[in-house]
Amino acid sequence: MALIVQKYGGTSVGSVERIQAVAEKVKAARDRGNQVVVVVSAMSGQTNRLIALAHEINAEGDPREMDVLISTGEQVTIALLSMALQRIGCPARSYTGGQVHILTDSAHSKARIQDIDGARVQADLEAGRVVVVAGFQGVDQQGDITTLGRGGSDTTAVAMAAALKADECQIYTDVDGVYTTDPRIEPKARRLERITFEEMLEMASLGSKVLQIRAVEFAGKYNVPLRVLSSFEEGEGTLITFEEESMEQAKISGIAFNRDEAKLTILGVPDHPGVAYQILGPISDANIEVDMIVQNIAADTSTTDFTFTVHRNDYKKALGILQTTAESLGAREALGDDTMVKISIVGVGMRSHAGIASQMFEALSSEGININMISTSEIKISVVVDEKYLELGVRTLHEAFSLDSEAAN
Amino acid sequence: MALIVQKYGGTSVGSVERIQAVAEKVKAARDRGNQVVVVVSAMSGQTNRLIALAHEINAEGDPREMDVLISTGEQVTIALLSMALQRIGCPARSYTGGQVHILTDSAHSKARIQDIDGARVQADLEAGRVVVVAGFQGVDQQGDITTLGRGGSDTTAVAMAAALKADECQIYTDVDGVYTTDPRIEPKARRLERITFEEMLEMASLGSKVLQIRAVEFAGKYNVPLRVLSSFEEGEGTLITFEEESMEQAKISGIAFNRDEAKLTILGVPDHPGVAYQILGPISDANIEVDMIVQNIAADTSTTDFTFTVHRNDYKKALGILQTTAESLGAREALGDDTMVKISIVGVGMRSHAGIASQMFEALSSEGININMISTSEIKISVVVDEKYLELGVRTLHEAFSLDSEAAN
Repeated sequence: MALIVQKYGGTSVGSVERIQAVAEKVKAARDRGNQVVVVVSAMSGQTNRLIALAHEINAEGDPREMDVLISTGEQVTIALLSMALQRIGCPARSYTGGQVHILTDSAHSKARIQDIDGARVQADLEAGRVVVVAGFQGVDQQGDITTLGRGGSDTTAVAMAAALKADECQIYTDVDGVYTTDPRIEPKARRLERITFEEMLEMASLGSKVLQIRAVEFAGKYNVPLRVLSSFEEGEGTLITFEEESMEQAKISGIAFNRDEAKLTILGVPDHPGVAYQILGPISDANIEVDMIVQNIAADTSTTDFTFTVHRNDYKKALGILQTTAESLGAREALGDDTMVKISIVGVGMRSHAGIASQMFEALSSEGININMISTSEIKISVVVDEKYLELGVRTLHEAFSLDSEAAN
Repeated sequence: MALIVQKYGGTSVGSVERIQAVAEKVKAARDRGNQVVVVVSAMSGQTNRLIALAHEINAEGDPREMDVLISTGEQVTIALLSMALQRIGCPARSYTGGQVHILTDSAHSKARIQDIDGARVQADLEAGRVVVVAGFQGVDQQGDITTLGRGGSDTTAVAMAAALKADECQIYTDVDGVYTTDPRIEPKARRLERITFEEMLEMASLGSKVLQIRAVEFAGKYNVPLRVLSSFEEGEGTLITFEEESMEQAKISGIAFNRDEAKLTILGVPDHPGVAYQILGPISDANIEVDMIVQNIAADTSTTDFTFTVHRNDYKKALGILQTTAESLGAREALGDDTMVKISIVGVGMRSHAGIASQMFEALSSEGININMISTSEIKISVVVDEKYLELGVRTLHEAFSLDSEAAN
């Protein structure tokens, strides 16, 4: 007998019929002899409806009161799902975040979970009940209702699984697993049977938005095996797990990409200690997030060239700031390009395989794709290229690393 | 500076505009120097919407889960009203029933309040905030969400007022006070400036449904002055208070009536101890509520005639049962009439004024109204008459006791 935490998002519980379908899935898991805890989101559309209502009344809704308001969405779902389970002969009991003491800090609308008291849930499980918990919400030390921010139900599920020492945390979503890359770009993209937490983190932050990053971090930190699978189709999904020493790793696991990059460069900056801060300080003061950063010594060696990327929406604002900085630092020029994309290969296999980077660059170059910037980490290599090369670049790398064949996994 | 608890029902908070109007009323009370606690219901229609959703899923919705579901209705309102108050510069903070520890028994959907912890509310009031509390809901000893049953927000307001030792509990409703009788029957009906708890209880249970009876009982028990007033019009409403010795009481305060009476009679029952139970036991076993009961010794003195009233909807069922009983007891006959109404005069002034009953009977007889049954209590006299006399009877008594003139009050 295993203890499983299942999480169903807003689309999966978006109507009475879908709630009934979820109840059948939950019951099936219980009938197979498992203890089951279910974490659910608000029915799709509900949260937005409540937010719209609040904005009619007060455009700057108080964060504390917003949390009181929108946490009702999940509370409706837990009651309805429990009733649907009871209807088909499956004993069930619902709990709000507050009722199972999902203790968070007091950062309303983006609170972080600090502790969960699993005692009451454990007692229900032992009594043979399915326990249905409201995702996305908790309470702070004062007993005020908090929410974890959009997508926070994933985090709730993982935190529940950690607190209960569950055997597996299953995240049901509208995709049937994690793919080697986006199938809309590369039709040969293949579902991965497993992926490591570290790879998943790199994939998620790079644009393969299957799971909330925080949930994956949480799962990694608390050793909770995580499985992504489809609410609507049968299948095993993708298991996100720890790297096993014995595992014969593929060189790389997947190809992530990000369409909305803009590149900014400041040329001929007199080089002295602290210049990076002088350039990036004003950008971050303007609340613009900087992604990749590359610095080169210029030909004359007394000046430096400095390049970084931002989200395309921030491009104009960032360029204006950079031009002011260029003047005050006596740099030669500030310029940029907002038609860039980032492509990354991700894989823990890189650690044990040499020459991955050169294999990547060779593949891109063989297709005439010019690389603008390069950035590497232990399990990831990213390149910035012109946006016209996005599809070609992804497909080229997918083939170069044989991601379409099962053997590579 | 006074501490006031205000309660607004579902119609009063039924739209964004109405919530904003309530916020203005609350702010006005605070601007006059009062500390204000507001208890609100779900926006009108919400509770029924949620119940319909539940019934789609499970016709016999588990009471525990139903309470989890429908308690979200008030939670939405408290958040929206708090935001509306903040919007107009009035600091406010919302609390669910659980958050202010409105402790109830575990009778889901009809729980009774056992205790309220006013400490947190008190601290907010001292900090200058308006406190907005969800009506109708509480938590039991296990931390499960409970609801008090329809209209329970009145009870919440009175219980909050009692716990906080408030100076007044104001119930805002769609009528502007308690009237001497229903103005739709007698256009000369007049709003009472004050009425005693006992009178109010008799009026409410007799069909003048302004307030939930339980709330009035609660207010009486905990010495909370209660005021009924209109959400939509200005005015002082009606103060429900204790009888003051110095008060010059009118003979009677109001005329209540009940349209839906049916009368049942069993004639010629052999009289012996326990016969009343033998007659009424089977009726109450069938879950039929009996209202008035009258027993007469029949002419021959060895048998008795027994008459009682039930709600018109229960008439046929009750008559069937009574006919069976008549046979088994060897009574002469069981018969009935489901076209009856009850008219009552209510007033604590009866205690100190003799001859009220005869004045009532005289007034009715002068209009040719035949009285079928009579029942009296310390502050109420009720008669059952044919339904065709309802309007005439009410108007006749309203005039006979000069209820249209201010002087009578």
